[in-house]
Amino acid sequence: MEFRIERDTIGEIKVPADKYWGAQTQRSKQNFKIGNEKMPLEVIKAFAQLKKAAAFTNNGLGKLSDAKKEAIVTACDEVLDGKFDEHFPLVVWQTGSGTQSNMNVNEVLARRANELLPEGSEEKVHPNDDINMSQSSNDTFPTAMHIAAYHAIYHDLIPALGQLKQTLFEKEKANMDIIKIGRTHLQDATPLTLGQEISGWRAMVEKSEKMIKESAEHLLNLAIGGTAVGTGINAEPIFGDKVAEQLSRQTGYSFVSSDNKFHALTSHDEIVFVHGALKGLAGDLTKIANDVRWLASGPRSGIGEISIPANEPGSSIMPGKVNPTQSEALTMVGVQVFGNDAAIGFAASQGNFELNVYKPVIIYNFLQSVHLLADSMISFNEKCVQGLEPNIEVIEENVNRSLMLVTALNPHIGYEKAAEIAKLAFKEGTTLKEAAIKTGYLTEEQYDEWIDPKKMVHL
Amino acid sequence: MEFRIERDTIGEIKVPADKYWGAQTQRSKQNFKIGNEKMPLEVIKAFAQLKKAAAFTNNGLGKLSDAKKEAIVTACDEVLDGKFDEHFPLVVWQTGSGTQSNMNVNEVLARRANELLPEGSEEKVHPNDDINMSQSSNDTFPTAMHIAAYHAIYHDLIPALGQLKQTLFEKEKANMDIIKIGRTHLQDATPLTLGQEISGWRAMVEKSEKMIKESAEHLLNLAIGGTAVGTGINAEPIFGDKVAEQLSRQTGYSFVSSDNKFHALTSHDEIVFVHGALKGLAGDLTKIANDVRWLASGPRSGIGEISIPANEPGSSIMPGKVNPTQSEALTMVGVQVFGNDAAIGFAASQGNFELNVYKPVIIYNFLQSVHLLADSMISFNEKCVQGLEPNIEVIEENVNRSLMLVTALNPHIGYEKAAEIAKLAFKEGTTLKEAAIKTGYLTEEQYDEWIDPKKMVHL
Amino acid sequence: MEFRIERDTIGEIKVPADKYWGAQTQRSKQNFKIGNEKMPLEVIKAFAQLKKAAAFTNNGLGKLSDAKKEAIVTACDEVLDGKFDEHFPLVVWQTGSGTQSNMNVNEVLARRANELLPEGSEEKVHPNDDINMSQSSNDTFPTAMHIAAYHAIYHDLIPALGQLKQTLFEKEKANMDIIKIGRTHLQDATPLTLGQEISGWRAMVEKSEKMIKESAEHLLNLAIGGTAVGTGINAEPIFGDKVAEQLSRQTGYSFVSSDNKFHALTSHDEIVFVHGALKGLAGDLTKIANDVRWLASGPRSGIGEISIPANEPGSSIMPGKVNPTQSEALTMVGVQVFGNDAAIGFAASQGNFELNVYKPVIIYNFLQSVHLLADSMISFNEKCVQGLEPNIEVIEENVNRSLMLVTALNPHIGYEKAAEIAKLAFKEGTTLKEAAIKTGYLTEEQYDEWIDPKKMVHL
Amino acid sequence: MEFRIERDTIGEIKVPADKYWGAQTQRSKQNFKIGNEKMPLEVIKAFAQLKKAAAFTNNGLGKLSDAKKEAIVTACDEVLDGKFDEHFPLVVWQTGSGTQSNMNVNEVLARRANELLPEGSEEKVHPNDDINMSQSSNDTFPTAMHIAAYHAIYHDLIPALGQLKQTLFEKEKANMDIIKIGRTHLQDATPLTLGQEISGWRAMVEKSEKMIKESAEHLLNLAIGGTAVGTGINAEPIFGDKVAEQLSRQTGYSFVSSDNKFHALTSHDEIVFVHGALKGLAGDLTKIANDVRWLASGPRSGIGEISIPANEPGSSIMPGKVNPTQSEALTMVGVQVFGNDAAIGFAASQGNFELNVYKPVIIYNFLQSVHLLADSMISFNEKCVQGLEPNIEVIEENVNRSLMLVTALNPHIGYEKAAEIAKLAFKEGTTLKEAAIKTGYLTEEQYDEWIDPKKMVHL
Repeated sequence: MEFRIERDTIGEIKVPADKYWGAQTQRSKQNFKIGNEKMPLEVIKAFAQLKKAAAFTNNGLGKLSDAKKEAIVTACDEVLDGKFDEHFPLVVWQTGSGTQSNMNVNEVLARRANELLPEGSEEKVHPNDDINMSQSSNDTFPTAMHIAAYHAIYHDLIPALGQLKQTLFEKEKANMDIIKIGRTHLQDATPLTLGQEISGWRAMVEKSEKMIKESAEHLLNLAIGGTAVGTGINAEPIFGDKVAEQLSRQTGYSFVSSDNKFHALTSHDEIVFVHGALKGLAGDLTKIANDVRWLASGPRSGIGEISIPANEPGSSIMPGKVNPTQSEALTMVGVQVFGNDAAIGFAASQGNFELNVYKPVIIYNFLQSVHLLADSMISFNEKCVQGLEPNIEVIEENVNRSLMLVTALNPHIGYEKAAEIAKLAFKEGTTLKEAAIKTGYLTEEQYDEWIDPKKMVHL
Repeated sequence: MEFRIERDTIGEIKVPADKYWGAQTQRSKQNFKIGNEKMPLEVIKAFAQLKKAAAFTNNGLGKLSDAKKEAIVTACDEVLDGKFDEHFPLVVWQTGSGTQSNMNVNEVLARRANELLPEGSEEKVHPNDDINMSQSSNDTFPTAMHIAAYHAIYHDLIPALGQLKQTLFEKEKANMDIIKIGRTHLQDATPLTLGQEISGWRAMVEKSEKMIKESAEHLLNLAIGGTAVGTGINAEPIFGDKVAEQLSRQTGYSFVSSDNKFHALTSHDEIVFVHGALKGLAGDLTKIANDVRWLASGPRSGIGEISIPANEPGSSIMPGKVNPTQSEALTMVGVQVFGNDAAIGFAASQGNFELNVYKPVIIYNFLQSVHLLADSMISFNEKCVQGLEPNIEVIEENVNRSLMLVTALNPHIGYEKAAEIAKLAFKEGTTLKEAAIKTGYLTEEQYDEWIDPKKMVHL
Repeated sequence: MEFRIERDTIGEIKVPADKYWGAQTQRSKQNFKIGNEKMPLEVIKAFAQLKKAAAFTNNGLGKLSDAKKEAIVTACDEVLDGKFDEHFPLVVWQTGSGTQSNMNVNEVLARRANELLPEGSEEKVHPNDDINMSQSSNDTFPTAMHIAAYHAIYHDLIPALGQLKQTLFEKEKANMDIIKIGRTHLQDATPLTLGQEISGWRAMVEKSEKMIKESAEHLLNLAIGGTAVGTGINAEPIFGDKVAEQLSRQTGYSFVSSDNKFHALTSHDEIVFVHGALKGLAGDLTKIANDVRWLASGPRSGIGEISIPANEPGSSIMPGKVNPTQSEALTMVGVQVFGNDAAIGFAASQGNFELNVYKPVIIYNFLQSVHLLADSMISFNEKCVQGLEPNIEVIEENVNRSLMLVTALNPHIGYEKAAEIAKLAFKEGTTLKEAAIKTGYLTEEQYDEWIDPKKMVHL
Repeated sequence: MEFRIERDTIGEIKVPADKYWGAQTQRSKQNFKIGNEKMPLEVIKAFAQLKKAAAFTNNGLGKLSDAKKEAIVTACDEVLDGKFDEHFPLVVWQTGSGTQSNMNVNEVLARRANELLPEGSEEKVHPNDDINMSQSSNDTFPTAMHIAAYHAIYHDLIPALGQLKQTLFEKEKANMDIIKIGRTHLQDATPLTLGQEISGWRAMVEKSEKMIKESAEHLLNLAIGGTAVGTGINAEPIFGDKVAEQLSRQTGYSFVSSDNKFHALTSHDEIVFVHGALKGLAGDLTKIANDVRWLASGPRSGIGEISIPANEPGSSIMPGKVNPTQSEALTMVGVQVFGNDAAIGFAASQGNFELNVYKPVIIYNFLQSVHLLADSMISFNEKCVQGLEPNIEVIEENVNRSLMLVTALNPHIGYEKAAEIAKLAFKEGTTLKEAAIKTGYLTEEQYDEWIDPKKMVHL
């Protein structure tokens, strides 16, 4: 490999000749050979948005020349277009402020901007003095975290959730009149319709969507303007507001500069909060996926009230076996999101003084959760829920032989006599009706009038 | 002990003669000898509110006689007044629907109501048919969970948080002009004022308060009206709305009947969400408590920039030792809340079909978090933060010898030359000023103009 | 209430006249009004064992008079007998070293020992100088943690586990020949016997027992002898070994003094490790409880292959409903243990320098896990597993109609043809045999020879 | 891209022409577009070891021809050599049994083995009938999990841990006589030597090593031989033992076939247990990294008792700033391991009947923990601990002015008088000696004899 010599305040270092990064990126690469988990490109792109907005702002404040601004903005746009993806080699397990990724961005943008400066220009774009002007890693990294997190939620998660919600809504309507047995404690309970059961799933997804959106509003608060410790040293007091405005213009999201920058650098309670909503979703999806696979269990010795698509052979040894694999992937994602939640909560509690230095691990886990949830909802929707169909025959057989229809007798004969009937039917293996009449507590006519599953579902 | 014979649909059972509970409570007591964690009395009292509202509603709907209603309402009020606390003996580790605690309430209220019926009355209040009329454990228990959780937040947590916030705000103002060294990565950084530092803590508490309040709105949705599986079998369609209205009247909180009762019985995403906000607070408090004890560390070989009250001897072996014990209690509470969060999230994911049967463990952990957070904030506030005072001498010494004031030179001489100065001062053990002048990058006059901590804090 | 005046190095304080505790306990009571979770009495009793062993050792080393030793030992025995339970009022949420509970023990023992000194004695037992002689909270509290944890495991958990294991073993033998359908991915799979299925549960409990016992050996290492920071200041170098020997004599457990006291004061990796084994058990029990309730699901619309005892009415609205409540309590305990594990792991990571100050929250969670696991295993065993019976008819019907018996054809006709047969039977709703013969891949005689569930279970 | 047509029991499907995988791999690729987390190559290589051992065994049992065996073994060796890494494209988020990765291995090996069969051979290696002979995904995947986990621990983790332990041991020896102030509750305590303090760190790493090794023995139990549900259908009863023996020969590890295969397929308590030990290590490393960064805090306004290497510029805005970045990476890894532990524990509890279908997410998290711990220990060792040096001057100053040396007076004048002295010195800002003499409790000579830090550290 060919190298060039770069230098920073520590000294000289060899950098691969074909890479845009500089000395500090190279040092991080060498000093942190830990794992393969790269700093997510989304964070890099959020940085590019931010550096672009900062260049506009610094230029507007008269601190950055037009030529430099033009070059920087173009370089940022190129990064946003994905032209430099391979020039961001750093891993998550680096300095906890993310300084090295901030410098990676500063270095790549500076090098590229210098290429873009008008030929013969005597200006030179400096990673710290120009790209990072009026900024610190301590305010830019959390800003990039919020930008990336908010974007991932609105660009990936909410649409995926929307698709699943829509399919569930359609299945809800299509199956609204199919009366089936309800189950509580896994035991037979009073009936409901399959559409009602699915409406519960739809409502979970919908509720989670609401909680995610509400909580995500807190991500619109940006640390930018706080610089090193929250005081805004070396930045104009108006810098944060201006950058937030410019970012809003660039992204279409309504970012604002945070009220209290000391909070913004050292607390990540907002991310904990939003991820709590993601955990709520993960729990709901786990429950839905479990219901689906249980209802589809069988084919002959399970519950078997619904069918789901057979997408692939299920077993390497059992021929013809079909498994609810989409449910399995989705519940494994649920598990991962739970683990990520523990990691994020712990990390967020570990700030000291003016800075929390667990930022990379926080955003890594957060974005993994968002993407796994989004992808697995799409997969579950397309490969499973869309093909979910009721097995009418099984459903009817189950509801008809249930003993819990007896519940409808409570208002007429009281709980205790109703219990007697149910127990008699269970003990003697008869139908509920036979038992009811045998007890003498009601007549056949009364039974037929009072025990009507259709009336029990309150459609 | 003396006993009386009670019976339920399983058969007869002996119950202590002086207790108001009945057969089902007794069975639970005998069948679940697990741990000592009682079903929180707050849940019992939430049930009493609910049973009272249900009695009003059933009476209004013409299903419950005036006499029974009167007796039940009085019995509920007595439970709310704490007159029957010893009659709710069940533990958390019972059936996962909380049915046994619902029946415990039904039994105690029925027995007491029967005593309260007018002498000579031929009516008899039945635990299931009257107290539980139009209800199931499956909708009443989650309703009681939400009532208890919302009440605990507004009655205990928010006031406690408010007191701490207020004290922090006062300390923030009182110390707004005391310039001190900032610290990032535990290393000396640019200065800020002690008031600014404290403002970060205040903002954390304030932000958490906001997130807790926002998310808690979801607890206003009640399951009541869903009865056994969410369809509302055996209840009038309007029952849920009416009860919610009545509850709002009784409590002053704006409860509504949940849009989708299937969700309300089987998902606890709302509680997961709110507890996520509590976890955010726990993390913030952990960070504040850590900052406080580090700033107060010493007395001679630590940071020692603040003093906190010496409330008790700190050591059984080291005479005269004083420890930051309030911080320790608070951070242990933080740890507990993190554990509770894991338990709640896991539990909430385990619903099947029409019911989640992890309700008692969810509300037990939730209420423990709320109370520990509330109590420990009050304790931390009163026994620590109120007595927190700056050690001016140490603070000044630290800020004056810091090398990171050099940051203010960036706009004037650039990052690289500024770094050279800082490194020189560090290497030679001199003041920053001496090093700055030695490099020749600036004059003494320029140094004095540019390096002014007062300007760096951007008050 | 009547009071007496006590004093410590902070000054005077009023203490209830009828309580044996002194000034420092009283201060803690007043300074930490947080929650209701008391320091577990088991920790207090472990302290009593330790103080007794220390008195013997200090006396043997010539540092404590015979009279004082006698008085202290008697006082310790009285505490061990439970005579002073009400004199240990402190909560978990106190100083993180547990100093206040150590002092509570020192104070109660000193006061009681002074009463026990021979009449006319001029000696006076001092809480610090005598009861705490050669000790610090920093080595006694972790010592008491290990004593209490080890004792709880061997006194409570292992016997409870043994009972459950024994019942499972008996059910395994009793049902070893009952062939039933296997299920993987919740879908029908190849058969096994019910006894084999139960043997998997038994093996889980047995494996967990092994891991718990192995890991618990690490608890035998005691911090005692380290005193304030691990150096053993103010203690004879041999003190730790002698106390461990004496403790072993008193308890029958093989305690030793830890190799490295610096580790013993500041790391709780041993407790994390043991609790990891408890978490393994919690996971296994969750899985067993889930299997039990699923196999018992129904009674008419579930799997219904086993019956479990009907211990109580299951529903407040659905008459005659019976629920798998023991499984529910057990899985809620599982959830709690998972939460506790998160709390313990986090707490154990937060040591600084010579001490971890999260000791009370660690031992509180640890002991809660042990007791909930022990109690719930006993309850599950007695109220559920002992009464578990196979539903032969359902089991036979399920295994006979299964399509996965086709697996046995692989060695004869290959996986692909076998799959064809299974799919044909599924599609046409026929028996496997009908489909097999229809394909022409084998004869009826071959089918009868090759497809024999008895041979498939490899008994 | 060019394609070929492959088929499985579901039907035909297009597969990239240059890839060795077959129909089932392709289906999984298309059906599970979730995340980027690939099934770890270590699992694939563990599979290759297993398939090789199975081929030997099946051949030995007379079920697989020599030619096929030869071809399969060679193909396995090629996979082990990394020649087919790009042919294993599947992600973690697939079927929970890992069937699709088992089939991926079966397909690649079969295709490659067919190429390797002697020219003109009429035999054809089939993915299911030959490569997967006597096996199921249900026993091979957990077998591969244990092989991969055990190998990762011994190949990566233990050596990395050993290096860190060795460096700590050297630093311990080198600094054994440097007396410094101890700190408990972050407050000044009695002295110890820097070597003693480091010995605590060393003991933590050593203790964790012991617990990891002990617990890892459980990973030597392999599921192989259980096939579909644990009964061993379609495998010779001796198959599992033979494969374990052959695997031991191939790897040098002492694998055995598990006693109870039902356990082996459906419980992952062993992995939970081992990861508990990893969590213990993560907690210990977190504590060590925190101690290191606190002791190195400053350079001028922190504790500053040690120096650690300055590996890179620490700040993008603060020139000359140096941060404890290796500690930061290590503690972020700690956080991740805590999160992974939560995920693994939860996943392991979710087995149903004969199978746990969370296997991929379990092994993914487990291996991530192992690798992050191994890599970060190496990095922390090389880039931080090896360069750790004491700042003698600061250390001496701190110990000399400490008030807690007073503890040594307890045996001479009692705790209470000693406390008086310490408080006096603190209040009046004097040395301990001045205060001691002022109280008159001891003479100057006694002070000098009794207060000798060298005697307090009990070297």
